[in-house]
Amino acid sequence: MATTPHGSGTTWSRAPVIALSGGIGGAKLALGLYRVLDPGALTVICNTADDFRHLGLHIAPDLDTVLYTLAGLSDPDRGWGRGAETWQVMDSLEALGGESWFRLGDKDLATHLERTHRLRAGETLSGVTERLVRRLGISAAVLPMSDDAVRTRLLSAGEWIDFQHYFVRLRCEPVVEAIAFAGAERATPAPDVLPALRDPRLQAVVICPSNPLVSIEPILAVPGIREALRRCTAPVIGVSPLIGGRALRGPAAKLLNELGLDASAGGVARRYAGLIDAWIVDETDAHAAVPDGVERIATRILMLSLKDRERLARDVLEVARRLSGDGTTAP
Amino acid sequence: MATTPHGSGTTWSRAPVIALSGGIGGAKLALGLYRVLDPGALTVICNTADDFRHLGLHIAPDLDTVLYTLAGLSDPDRGWGRGAETWQVMDSLEALGGESWFRLGDKDLATHLERTHRLRAGETLSGVTERLVRRLGISAAVLPMSDDAVRTRLLSAGEWIDFQHYFVRLRCEPVVEAIAFAGAERATPAPDVLPALRDPRLQAVVICPSNPLVSIEPILAVPGIREALRRCTAPVIGVSPLIGGRALRGPAAKLLNELGLDASAGGVARRYAGLIDAWIVDETDAHAAVPDGVERIATRILMLSLKDRERLARDVLEVARRLSGDGTTAP
Repeated sequence: MATTPHGSGTTWSRAPVIALSGGIGGAKLALGLYRVLDPGALTVICNTADDFRHLGLHIAPDLDTVLYTLAGLSDPDRGWGRGAETWQVMDSLEALGGESWFRLGDKDLATHLERTHRLRAGETLSGVTERLVRRLGISAAVLPMSDDAVRTRLLSAGEWIDFQHYFVRLRCEPVVEAIAFAGAERATPAPDVLPALRDPRLQAVVICPSNPLVSIEPILAVPGIREALRRCTAPVIGVSPLIGGRALRGPAAKLLNELGLDASAGGVARRYAGLIDAWIVDETDAHAAVPDGVERIATRILMLSLKDRERLARDVLEVARRLSGDGTTAP
Repeated sequence: MATTPHGSGTTWSRAPVIALSGGIGGAKLALGLYRVLDPGALTVICNTADDFRHLGLHIAPDLDTVLYTLAGLSDPDRGWGRGAETWQVMDSLEALGGESWFRLGDKDLATHLERTHRLRAGETLSGVTERLVRRLGISAAVLPMSDDAVRTRLLSAGEWIDFQHYFVRLRCEPVVEAIAFAGAERATPAPDVLPALRDPRLQAVVICPSNPLVSIEPILAVPGIREALRRCTAPVIGVSPLIGGRALRGPAAKLLNELGLDASAGGVARRYAGLIDAWIVDETDAHAAVPDGVERIATRILMLSLKDRERLARDVLEVARRLSGDGTTAP
């Protein structure tokens, strides 16, 4: 997206910003940040706990959603996958009796083939992702949270279900009793993750409006990342994934309810207690109870248009500047 | 191809026939045999020594050409791959900087994904092929020569080149000094191969007009197959892949010449000495010198139309019946 108008060359638009993101919802705000910051200023740390192996391919849904979104290649209606996609491989696979519950578009498949092929040749997920970032002309860093396999599993009716089976094949229908991030305790953050979080020039860390339970918390479960966020000198600002107790997309509210947790903007903020300095909620949730010491900011957080994404990104950065005691005002 | 008019329910059209085949040229005659025989009568034993792993996929070019041809799915112009093919995955892969010298169509890719996935799950190549045969509605048996990896390599300028690199990437340009079938000596025939060759009801074994050096001889290099052909009670009938010293397609004549071998219809027959009972050549080669004891039959062997394929198939079966001393005449 070399033609995207980036940042404005001001001090604030040049300073590094980190976004923690899952898939669609998070990628929307990541795109907003990408567009209002200067090239090179944004680093997205991506959940990879819903990566999975399917048809022998390494599929990284959140990484790809972020890559396609930043590259301007994502499908504007579906939210996932690539725009102007075709489905010849899937249709042919179905005709051969192959597994087709996870719909892989033809263009999207090229990414999985290339990634899997390179991983098998010994490259790391970070290395492959960096190469894709470069090929797609993205001027942000996109980092998997870890190069090690961490896999989200959900316990339902006494059985552990792999995330994509729960999410896609079973359409989030099973009632979930517990969530585990298999492999997390043995995983290490991808090489650039901790250095990025320790960068003294860091302007802000943004926790994107992604599902807390299955998108953000897997990132925090990789040993070292939660601690680095706690010690981070820059303000950590979260954006609520819930508006009026409902997720715009995905099973966040349903999961929180099933696990007996508080499915509200304030409830999610409390899950990030000790990490966030500010919590941005929708105007609807202007009175959400947030943890002590966390500043609550109410604004319009629904991102329908590209303008919404950019505006919310500016709001987030404005809060960061204020919390850092920097008087400069965003345009 | 359930709608194809099969055989005629006569004794000859019901009795089992085996065809040894490589890719395009061989598949043409295999299709002719398939169409003039009753459903279930034909078994094709396929070369798999030009199988290779590409982008992490197990690609079996000759098997697929035979499958697609018998299923009526092959591309009528290109000869390889599927008809009405699209190329989205390849184009996208190219844009990502992936390897695109071996063009995999979208529909074709589904076959490779399914095969690779099942092989990785522990199925055998025969098992996977049988499943594909069933799904594609083919009423013939299609057998890989072996479930073990046998790989054709060509020596050129002191370096061994993998077959598909020679054949596709280098467009058969290197001058070849030697050919090897790596792994052949340790391979065993696929489970149904020897039983098929030993079937007492067998009417004929047909060596299709495939490249002798890289399509038929790899099959014969699998321990047990050459011996089974020698002991076979049914007539073994070969069809020349050369007309007037030239291959219609592929590097057969070029390879024979480079290796100092006789690049003629008779020269190829001599490579099959001790195996074949009859050798069918084009009218152009009516005087080809064939080994002692081998009957030479000259006819039109160029297969342009579907009718040509059926006619040649009938000619081959007619020769088989005559050699078996069976007075019945083909329709």
